[in-house]
Amino acid sequence: MRNYKLTIEYDGSRYNGWQRLGNTENTIQFKIENVLSLMTGEEIKIIGSGRTDAGVHAFNQIANFKTYCTKSPLEIENYCNQYLPQDIVIKKVTEVDERFHARYNAVSKIYLYRIWNQQTPTAFKRKYSYHIPHQLDIQAMRQAANYFVGEHDFKAFSSAKSKKKSSVRTIYSINLNVNGPELDIYFHGNGFLYNMVRIMTGTLIEIGEHKQKPQNIEDILQERSREEAGVTAPAQALFLYDVFYE
Amino acid sequence: MRNYKLTIEYDGSRYNGWQRLGNTENTIQFKIENVLSLMTGEEIKIIGSGRTDAGVHAFNQIANFKTYCTKSPLEIENYCNQYLPQDIVIKKVTEVDERFHARYNAVSKIYLYRIWNQQTPTAFKRKYSYHIPHQLDIQAMRQAANYFVGEHDFKAFSSAKSKKKSSVRTIYSINLNVNGPELDIYFHGNGFLYNMVRIMTGTLIEIGEHKQKPQNIEDILQERSREEAGVTAPAQALFLYDVFYE
Repeated sequence: MRNYKLTIEYDGSRYNGWQRLGNTENTIQFKIENVLSLMTGEEIKIIGSGRTDAGVHAFNQIANFKTYCTKSPLEIENYCNQYLPQDIVIKKVTEVDERFHARYNAVSKIYLYRIWNQQTPTAFKRKYSYHIPHQLDIQAMRQAANYFVGEHDFKAFSSAKSKKKSSVRTIYSINLNVNGPELDIYFHGNGFLYNMVRIMTGTLIEIGEHKQKPQNIEDILQERSREEAGVTAPAQALFLYDVFYE
Repeated sequence: MRNYKLTIEYDGSRYNGWQRLGNTENTIQFKIENVLSLMTGEEIKIIGSGRTDAGVHAFNQIANFKTYCTKSPLEIENYCNQYLPQDIVIKKVTEVDERFHARYNAVSKIYLYRIWNQQTPTAFKRKYSYHIPHQLDIQAMRQAANYFVGEHDFKAFSSAKSKKKSSVRTIYSINLNVNGPELDIYFHGNGFLYNMVRIMTGTLIEIGEHKQKPQNIEDILQERSREEAGVTAPAQALFLYDVFYE
């Protein structure tokens, strides 16, 4: 059997996320499996590097699948892009070692959260950014972001219901890039809890609005209490930006 | 009476253009007039710098309107952005001399045509670009574009039915900017005939695909024959980029 790695870009606006229990049809995973099954005549299951929520986008989601099909990577790419909806694009296909597993082998990920930070809204990026009309204090947000960096228990920054699994994660870096009205926040970490990026962003925004102080992050992390952290920022401005493997 | 100038950004995807005879309701002009009439209690008519076709977008369309309303420019901007659909944004409102006329006083315009030039399509810009999978010959296109610069009779590059009006226009510059897979073509001229930018672009693409030679432009301009020029490139990748006044 061959093992193929897919690099996938998608506009998540129309979908119930990457994967969903129950009604799975309107998911990105299902759409891709459907096309690959058509192509191969096999029942293909793809393994994503992780789920993305309803409305969340991806520049580089990674997945893999196994097949007896002997098509070349380029043939697979072209077939997929011909039959997939236009808001899902296969950017690259590579044949990989049979042991490659898109979820287990992922060592880190970058998420991007995009804020449109000016009074005037945007007609073109309205579906891909979060509009904050009042000027944010970027310096305070950068100061706050530094408290997230390192290994911490991020329980306060998660909507996870499960109490069993560890909520300890490592954040390698958080970069705030200002480009005109656009504030892009890049979160690089070894893994992220459910809603973690959106809650960290919601908290950073409250700090940028001077509703909280940067130093609060330290206390919130220690107290591990979801109530102390900020609101969950909207899904439509979040992008899975990249996934790294060894 | 006061005269206000509006700078407008819109995503034209959902609309029948800026203005339309007959069924006018699904036009950008109508949407704006509607909100301004609500705001002022008067029947407001706005004058655009020119029409844009169905599906064409704008970064900076300019319009003006007259009113007895005494709201400040900022109040008007905020009111409009609150009540307009999210794909139409008023970027700026300024009070101008009563003689200012957005159409008559416009001295030149820039249009942008955006090509996505790589094998792999784009999930995010699919509605705002024209996908050309095969590598275009940019040098040949630049050479061809130079033939358009200057004062010419652009009859061959127009879908206009009227035979009365002059089809002489001046193109000041055409710039092809390559940014990764994106090829942005900026057309700066004193005015543009109906479909002129889209037909010039369609012709440039044929040259970039080596279906025509750059030198052909000279002949096509001289022969004034629409059949010799290229196809009309799709509307969804065209943006009214800027409008200039004295």
